[in-house]
Amino acid sequence: RINSDRLWDSIMEMAKIGPGIAGGNNRQTVTDEDGEGRHLFKRWCDAAGLDMGVDEMGTMFARREGTDPSLPPVYVGSHLDTQPTGGKYDGVLGVLGGLEIVRSLNDLGIKTKHPIVVTNWTNEEGARFAPAMMASGVFAGVLDQADVYEHTDKNGKKFGEELERIGWKGSEKVGDRKIHAFFELHIEQGPILEDEDIDIGVVTHGQGLKWLQVTLTGKEAHTGSTPMPKRRNAGLGMARVIELVHEIAMDYQPDAVGAVGHMEVYPNSRNIIAGRTVFTIDIRSPEKEVLDAMDGRIREGIETICDALDIQYKIEQVGHFDPVTFDAGCVKAIRDAAERLGYTHRNIVSGAGHDACWINRVAPTAMVMCPCVDGLSHNEAEEITKEWASAGADVLFHAVVETAVI
Amino acid sequence: RINSDRLWDSIMEMAKIGPGIAGGNNRQTVTDEDGEGRHLFKRWCDAAGLDMGVDEMGTMFARREGTDPSLPPVYVGSHLDTQPTGGKYDGVLGVLGGLEIVRSLNDLGIKTKHPIVVTNWTNEEGARFAPAMMASGVFAGVLDQADVYEHTDKNGKKFGEELERIGWKGSEKVGDRKIHAFFELHIEQGPILEDEDIDIGVVTHGQGLKWLQVTLTGKEAHTGSTPMPKRRNAGLGMARVIELVHEIAMDYQPDAVGAVGHMEVYPNSRNIIAGRTVFTIDIRSPEKEVLDAMDGRIREGIETICDALDIQYKIEQVGHFDPVTFDAGCVKAIRDAAERLGYTHRNIVSGAGHDACWINRVAPTAMVMCPCVDGLSHNEAEEITKEWASAGADVLFHAVVETAVI
Ligand SMILES: NC(=O)NCCC(=O)O
Ligand SMILES: NC(=O)NCCC(=O)O
Repeated sequence: RINSDRLWDSIMEMAKIGPGIAGGNNRQTVTDEDGEGRHLFKRWCDAAGLDMGVDEMGTMFARREGTDPSLPPVYVGSHLDTQPTGGKYDGVLGVLGGLEIVRSLNDLGIKTKHPIVVTNWTNEEGARFAPAMMASGVFAGVLDQADVYEHTDKNGKKFGEELERIGWKGSEKVGDRKIHAFFELHIEQGPILEDEDIDIGVVTHGQGLKWLQVTLTGKEAHTGSTPMPKRRNAGLGMARVIELVHEIAMDYQPDAVGAVGHMEVYPNSRNIIAGRTVFTIDIRSPEKEVLDAMDGRIREGIETICDALDIQYKIEQVGHFDPVTFDAGCVKAIRDAAERLGYTHRNIVSGAGHDACWINRVAPTAMVMCPCVDGLSHNEAEEITKEWASAGADVLFHAVVETAVI
Repeated sequence: RINSDRLWDSIMEMAKIGPGIAGGNNRQTVTDEDGEGRHLFKRWCDAAGLDMGVDEMGTMFARREGTDPSLPPVYVGSHLDTQPTGGKYDGVLGVLGGLEIVRSLNDLGIKTKHPIVVTNWTNEEGARFAPAMMASGVFAGVLDQADVYEHTDKNGKKFGEELERIGWKGSEKVGDRKIHAFFELHIEQGPILEDEDIDIGVVTHGQGLKWLQVTLTGKEAHTGSTPMPKRRNAGLGMARVIELVHEIAMDYQPDAVGAVGHMEVYPNSRNIIAGRTVFTIDIRSPEKEVLDAMDGRIREGIETICDALDIQYKIEQVGHFDPVTFDAGCVKAIRDAAERLGYTHRNIVSGAGHDACWINRVAPTAMVMCPCVDGLSHNEAEEITKEWASAGADVLFHAVVETAVI
């Protein structure tokens, strides 16, 4: 079993970097805080005797040599970036859980045949720069590196330039690694495991996602002196699209979810009818057919709404992944580990996107999940217990070591 | 008649300060740009031989002495501040129209019995700091000076401190002036005069207004892994309130308008269900009963919406004025002037709030309106013709001189 105190202490240590305003973290991707978090992780990796590689997307690969260095490594990890108002565990548990595995192997003097590589993928959250899971997406060949370098945040800063600015743009070509298998430990971010009092989620599938960024263009005008029939209100249009997305998601739930979390209003003045709004629709389903049907209904609905209000619209897809079926062998390794260690477990579908979803396209991949309090995540109040964390890391440990072969 | 070239040139000169991004202006109240605009206005006043007073709200009073200095002055003016994406005429026409009157009197060597005071009221727009018509509201004793000093902008800056910072906090006690009459020239900001091809709006009434700032508190959560029935979505709540306000306004129009132009979303991330939204409802009507009825229905509706979504709400009234009936004598002076000068005219109700609405409570007051292209205002594309401007200023000239007595 892993050293659960050490794992917990490291998580708490990392949480000191980029503190939030309500007990959580604001360590968004390629900010100064992200850079500081990376330095701490590197110091820990150095201390554990690992060899650090960094690729052109800033992804960190900390290698523990195998007894047969010619074998492809087993990868384990997640991400250290957070939402602007994120929790202490989302992503961090998976990276530091991976580090804890190699620390434990060091303690026990165990050598594996395959090397083990602890990984910190850049920009998993997609909060500052869309899309989410950006670096793993480029690694898997689904996203274009030159393209994502140009993606801008709300202040117009470019991803590629910010990565360079914080000093973490490596020289290694992205995707140039053979992966024997990839394992990711993550908090569930939903309520199922806690509700059913189960220690371990064996993740068999991941939901698919679409992010549709919508721009509505109406006409700025005075809220007091412009007659109601003369208005071309882009704020009202946004409100109607938000309701539309909700209704469509309700039609398909529990096999779908949908919401708008990101909204910008121009010029955003109390006495000006909004001339322009920009917002992102987030829809998800484990069924590709459902996701496509929702997408179609949303586009139709937006057209109807905009016609009625005499406003223009533009829809850009700024994120997308199909539903994922994880590798049967890796899933079995996780289920067997939970069984062997005596943890209660059940199969589960990931509601969130994860780097594992992209890596699954280029290497056998699976995920372990542990419960989180109230199913709450993407909230500074995100919480887990030390016991849940160590059960998850134990299962990860056994699955990784089993796959890397002693 | 006034000198219409000089008036137009001065408007264009002022428009160079705080240029917008689309041909209009961003000269928001108590910014550096506002300070610069005030200096230009003061230089012009100095050149016209006027004596400048500034009160503790930063309102500028430029006095042309009367032949009987003991008589209370006739005041004329409007505001030089703009919306963040405002036009070149909203407010500016009224201040520089006032200045043009005294310039013309100087040219003609005409002396009036009553002094004439050209006035620039601080923070008419209410864009940076609520409420609108702030300084005239304090002058009229409806708003509390100590209270509005503490009002903050989006960056947490206080009105009082910003006024001091730009160097325009005067020493004169606010409201300490006897006003014989107040006249304000303003663009209509609505479509009626242009549609009916009429030169002059004789403003008999002003609509009443309420600004209700609403805060909805739900729970930040993951857009992907949070089941639909578990969500407490403050963004969806805001969308429903925006639709509610629109529907209620449609029920009462043409006797009412309503919209939400200002919205803030927290934490505003694509994959986080909004935990909190803050937005301002703007409702108006020329009938107090209608305004009160709308207010009641909105409050009831918000309660219903929030109950259904399991979110909390707080409603703060951040702006309010009752419908206004302008002074019969001043209104007549304007109508007579239009008639005498041969301009077409009609009675009109102001859809927007104006400093004249507050001053009407403490002194006989009325307004002159001129058309604007497409009724468009609070938009950088706001436009008027030189002819419209000079017709408005001519009528203002005659009404003021008539009232100040030669
Ligand atoms: N795990 C996680 O929160 N990933 C962010 C991408 C998503 O929105 O699902
Ligand atoms: N005239 C004008 O635009 N005033 C601003 C206050 C309001 O919103 O009516």
